[in-house]
Amino acid sequence: MTLTVLDGGVTAPKGYLATGCAAGLKKTGKNDMAILMSQVPATVAACFTSSVVKAAPVLRDKALLAAGDFVTAVVANSGNANACTGEAGKQSNQEMAQTLADLLEVPVGQVWTASTGVIGAPFPIEKVKAGIAKAVPTLSDSREAANEAAKGIMTTDTYSKEIAISFELDGKTVTIGGMAKGSGMICPDLATMLAFVTTDCAISQEMLQKALSADVKDTYNMVSVDGDESTNDTLIVLANGRAGNEAITTEGPAFDAFCEALNLVNTTLAQHLARDGEGATKLVIAKVTGAKTEEDARKLAKSVIQSSLVKAAMFGQDANWGRILAAMGYAGAKFNPDHVDISYLSPAGNIDLFVAGTPIDFDEDKALKILKENEITVDIQVHEGWGNATAWGCDLSYDYVKINGDYRT
Amino acid sequence: MTLTVLDGGVTAPKGYLATGCAAGLKKTGKNDMAILMSQVPATVAACFTSSVVKAAPVLRDKALLAAGDFVTAVVANSGNANACTGEAGKQSNQEMAQTLADLLEVPVGQVWTASTGVIGAPFPIEKVKAGIAKAVPTLSDSREAANEAAKGIMTTDTYSKEIAISFELDGKTVTIGGMAKGSGMICPDLATMLAFVTTDCAISQEMLQKALSADVKDTYNMVSVDGDESTNDTLIVLANGRAGNEAITTEGPAFDAFCEALNLVNTTLAQHLARDGEGATKLVIAKVTGAKTEEDARKLAKSVIQSSLVKAAMFGQDANWGRILAAMGYAGAKFNPDHVDISYLSPAGNIDLFVAGTPIDFDEDKALKILKENEITVDIQVHEGWGNATAWGCDLSYDYVKINGDYRT
Repeated sequence: MTLTVLDGGVTAPKGYLATGCAAGLKKTGKNDMAILMSQVPATVAACFTSSVVKAAPVLRDKALLAAGDFVTAVVANSGNANACTGEAGKQSNQEMAQTLADLLEVPVGQVWTASTGVIGAPFPIEKVKAGIAKAVPTLSDSREAANEAAKGIMTTDTYSKEIAISFELDGKTVTIGGMAKGSGMICPDLATMLAFVTTDCAISQEMLQKALSADVKDTYNMVSVDGDESTNDTLIVLANGRAGNEAITTEGPAFDAFCEALNLVNTTLAQHLARDGEGATKLVIAKVTGAKTEEDARKLAKSVIQSSLVKAAMFGQDANWGRILAAMGYAGAKFNPDHVDISYLSPAGNIDLFVAGTPIDFDEDKALKILKENEITVDIQVHEGWGNATAWGCDLSYDYVKINGDYRT
Repeated sequence: MTLTVLDGGVTAPKGYLATGCAAGLKKTGKNDMAILMSQVPATVAACFTSSVVKAAPVLRDKALLAAGDFVTAVVANSGNANACTGEAGKQSNQEMAQTLADLLEVPVGQVWTASTGVIGAPFPIEKVKAGIAKAVPTLSDSREAANEAAKGIMTTDTYSKEIAISFELDGKTVTIGGMAKGSGMICPDLATMLAFVTTDCAISQEMLQKALSADVKDTYNMVSVDGDESTNDTLIVLANGRAGNEAITTEGPAFDAFCEALNLVNTTLAQHLARDGEGATKLVIAKVTGAKTEEDARKLAKSVIQSSLVKAAMFGQDANWGRILAAMGYAGAKFNPDHVDISYLSPAGNIDLFVAGTPIDFDEDKALKILKENEITVDIQVHEGWGNATAWGCDLSYDYVKINGDYRT
């Protein structure tokens, strides 16, 4: 299947409008609000934080997902997470949805919400309502509008994260667009991942959720900046059917094609989240091949990118393969260390460090050259079975500590 | 029961000799070797790393523990972990034990070993053998000898960690001594915790292991500096019966007394490990009360001290209670956030931040004063049941990144 990468974001598929604006929630005057709208009610699939502590918008969206209605619009803000805000927060969240529903003249149950930012601070609902009123007239299907929306959900992200791709199905062009914000911590409080994916594909709710639930295991769930999970993590996929393909309602070649395309969108956004982790100077990729099971491969890959020791060594450009093996050791997967191979790869070349359980007397200068690059792959061969997985993370730098420790001083 | 804290270490109980020396494994010329000896063969209990990747001395000690013999001596080195060193490493480890066994004229199966330091580097067995030969003549039951041994196992620790206490049993004075080395990462490779506890209590192997296995859950296992687990973690308790108490062979008041005393020794050493975590500027204590179960309480307390966000906020003296609640949220324990209370305590006072699920409008100046101290307790009331636990950690500072990222530059 041919997947074509487009210059675009959430407005790339047919029938979607977007916008962003500065509602005054951020002191910087930058965009802090995003609105996304489908011109026809869209099928929705979603995944949320598994934290026991859930923000007001997460609780409301989850209830709406369970109720099973379509979604027409999503309104998101940065600057305030509306988490741990009690009854007042829930009421503000409902008002946020109601304000957009009234302006768009759609049922409030078809309007979803998402928030990211400070936890426990009162939600500034009046600013949010004014922001929505200001933003709605600017809703547009343009490339720029999608980018304004992507900026509106940014917190400590250093760049906005967008992707759009298209592929052919039944002779029709199907497009998927997406935007996401960083899994780096939000100034001043929480690590939140928000991702919004739009598609004009015709697909049933059941199959859309099935595709999404399977895909997150290999994409967003394989990203870690610091192991902290937010109260607000939200991933929403809207499908409005405007591509005109025969609706996907069962497994088969069309479903597989959609899954492949969705995977590219999600993988791209997930990589951006890792690369732009707070204070990160490089993307670290752990690629595990030949674990006993896929689940074991995921555990091993994730343990490597989550290890503070590995992350600090990557920042220090130190070929400390022992830390890789140590992180694998406590991952909770069984393997024989005597069979393991570990290599580092980067645009500057590749180098073997540990082969068949034996340390290699490697060239330190060559290793340093490889580790100076801003994208490093740790290639791990386990030789236990057929389980493969890839995880994305970043290094641990002084700036991570600065961003998350010093912000009030 | 009265527990008396003594100025002493592993030589405080009757019948133990110790020593330390510089065998040249550390470039600094500081102590890098420790020998511990019981004048009569001692009963032993031990706990080891649960990592799949185990160092040569861990594999050997585990096998000896399973074989069930007594222990007469332990030889430990810092500077090289003898991990991921293959067959040559195992052979060197056996030689290390044999060298000491020959000099002490005891069976090699009664000599245990421990190593900490670089992983994957060839083990410098000749230096170690020379070090043992140099150290043995200096074995002594003096206070100073215990301290030399404690220094011999240090890596990036900034101070040596020792404790001794005594209590009365059957009209006899029973003493327990201990030394440990940091759970901060070892320059240049791994986080290793080594702890050696000696007692003159008479107690069966079964009851000694029972006491130890129960106690580690609430002590060493509740410490985290960075969540990384070593290939070399080793905790050994020797009991030589020289106190002359009636041997403890079943549960009952004598066993309870021993457990209480052992807990104080282990708690003290565990706290030192957290306080001296790499780059740490303060000890962070998470005290969880009223979780559904003890297991839940442990999960919650440990999740709080392991959170990079909480740790960075502690370094930044920022009263970010939202990060505490977020870390509890993903701990894997069920609770209702609407019932939770969170307070901070330090020698400078205490302050409520979150009460019954509601943010408190607290005095920032007072909070800052409390957080400036070098020992902060996060007091968490869950209001779900009767499970309590305490975990010890430290803050995340620039120096952590420096120590673990920059060492080769």
